[in-house]
Amino acid sequence: MSYAGHMLDTYPRDFNVEAGVLATTMDALIECAQACTADADADLSEQNVAELVKCIRLCLDCADVCAATVRVASRQTEYDAGVTRPLLEACAATCKSCGDECEHHAQRHEHCRVCAEACRRCEQACRELLAAMLGWRRASSTVARRRPTAGGC
Amino acid sequence: MSYAGHMLDTYPRDFNVEAGVLATTMDALIECAQACTADADADLSEQNVAELVKCIRLCLDCADVCAATVRVASRQTEYDAGVTRPLLEACAATCKSCGDECEHHAQRHEHCRVCAEACRRCEQACRELLAAMLGWRRASSTVARRRPTAGGC
Amino acid sequence: MSYAGHMLDTYPRDFNVEAGVLATTMDALIECAQACTADADADLSEQNVAELVKCIRLCLDCADVCAATVRVASRQTEYDAGVTRPLLEACAATCKSCGDECEHHAQRHEHCRVCAEACRRCEQACRELLAAMLGWRRASSTVARRRPTAGGC
Amino acid sequence: MSYAGHMLDTYPRDFNVEAGVLATTMDALIECAQACTADADADLSEQNVAELVKCIRLCLDCADVCAATVRVASRQTEYDAGVTRPLLEACAATCKSCGDECEHHAQRHEHCRVCAEACRRCEQACRELLAAMLGWRRASSTVARRRPTAGGC
Repeated sequence: MSYAGHMLDTYPRDFNVEAGVLATTMDALIECAQACTADADADLSEQNVAELVKCIRLCLDCADVCAATVRVASRQTEYDAGVTRPLLEACAATCKSCGDECEHHAQRHEHCRVCAEACRRCEQACRELLAAMLGWRRASSTVARRRPTAGGC
Repeated sequence: MSYAGHMLDTYPRDFNVEAGVLATTMDALIECAQACTADADADLSEQNVAELVKCIRLCLDCADVCAATVRVASRQTEYDAGVTRPLLEACAATCKSCGDECEHHAQRHEHCRVCAEACRRCEQACRELLAAMLGWRRASSTVARRRPTAGGC
Repeated sequence: MSYAGHMLDTYPRDFNVEAGVLATTMDALIECAQACTADADADLSEQNVAELVKCIRLCLDCADVCAATVRVASRQTEYDAGVTRPLLEACAATCKSCGDECEHHAQRHEHCRVCAEACRRCEQACRELLAAMLGWRRASSTVARRRPTAGGC
Repeated sequence: MSYAGHMLDTYPRDFNVEAGVLATTMDALIECAQACTADADADLSEQNVAELVKCIRLCLDCADVCAATVRVASRQTEYDAGVTRPLLEACAATCKSCGDECEHHAQRHEHCRVCAEACRRCEQACRELLAAMLGWRRASSTVARRRPTAGGC
């Protein structure tokens, strides 16, 4: 099991979303942040650095956004969907832009190919967590609506 | 003039948005990140820390999101509105949540009152930059649409 | 007064170091982090980007180290000199390396000149806070040593 | 193989230190940053949060320092030992303080026990990378000293 998942297992309360989906997203965010930091640096080592300026810039952005997102997603205490949801959307959009740009250089530079993959996986994971949050909210509100009826019996 | 504005003055190319609005937003983001880090810490020093858990959590989130947003907004090279726009929206939403929570404790704790103000100002600044980006895009596309015509004359 | 200083004024307990020195250092750290993020980006916009690779790399490092240092320095609750001191030393060393490199490009690029200044100021501020922490500890231990004598009278 | 190691494999130039040691340290830094972010949050969810204030504070510091250190360590381009070395020392010291504090709460809180382990492993990894950097420098300078002789033959 991943390390993020291991820490989730020790959390003293209930989660605000399905734990497996959350752990997968956190792993993807951590790996994408790391890939983007390393890819920006590898780009700086290339002969054709001048052609990689857009890739460097988007990798720096993507590393910063993924790093902030994994911190926010890691916090389960007093969870606020109004914070997490738009941030996951921003993160998915950033991974999309960065993944597209890295893909342009994937054939020439292996580090860009690996980074593009990490961005794709992270974008997908953010979208799946967003969907799970929506499903969870629906399930919770269904439970909430049922309870008074059950209590009324 | 603010420091962020001073660095903007040295940027070697044209900006992607009106420089004054950008500098104001960057200052507000930097101050909000600092206020939230300090407020979370001041909360931890209070006797009633157990009542401040939500405030601490949102301040930690807000500090992380503002810190990522000011870095992305600082990067003008190969600017990508598809990254900046949703991040500013997420940042404004985070400042809203955090500002609301800090306001609950403003009467009892001066550090929460000052932090709430920083959050309000930052939320406002993010929304103004979003509006300026939209106006800029419209102005640019007007210019773009005009150019061929002008060129055709 | 600076914003960091304004938040320090609201802190509910005593400081672990002279507040004026702390506020000055926090301002210098915040400005240096911002200058380095902006300078790395401005470098990426220059024609001679290939000659600026070392400058970009050190600016990215310096922005990351200053950002972590200002957060740690902002936390006064349960202050631990064993954490703050080596981090301030690492930050001063990073500002020294980054300032030296930026200075090489100062004549050609105004953004590097401004960034070099911010690095110099931040290095100096970190060293002054380190000296103040040492003086404070000495002053505190003098008070501590006196107390038993006074109590013994 | 870990993800950080996978990205290291794609780096286009020689490393400044033995790649296996670097990958192990980067994994330990990433895991420690994640454990500390999660542990601070889990502490905030505990009934005895007032007794965990020091643990929360040090976990926030440790997460920030590890996050900065893994970014700097990930950058191999234009590597500067004068930056990396004191930062690794600061990181090891922070992990020591945080690990000690988490250990105090390990029996009562499983999340603190897991976090203490992550801090210990990260402290150890930082020290091993520091030792490897020293060995590497010695080996490099031996090669450097030999070369002129060899060239002289």
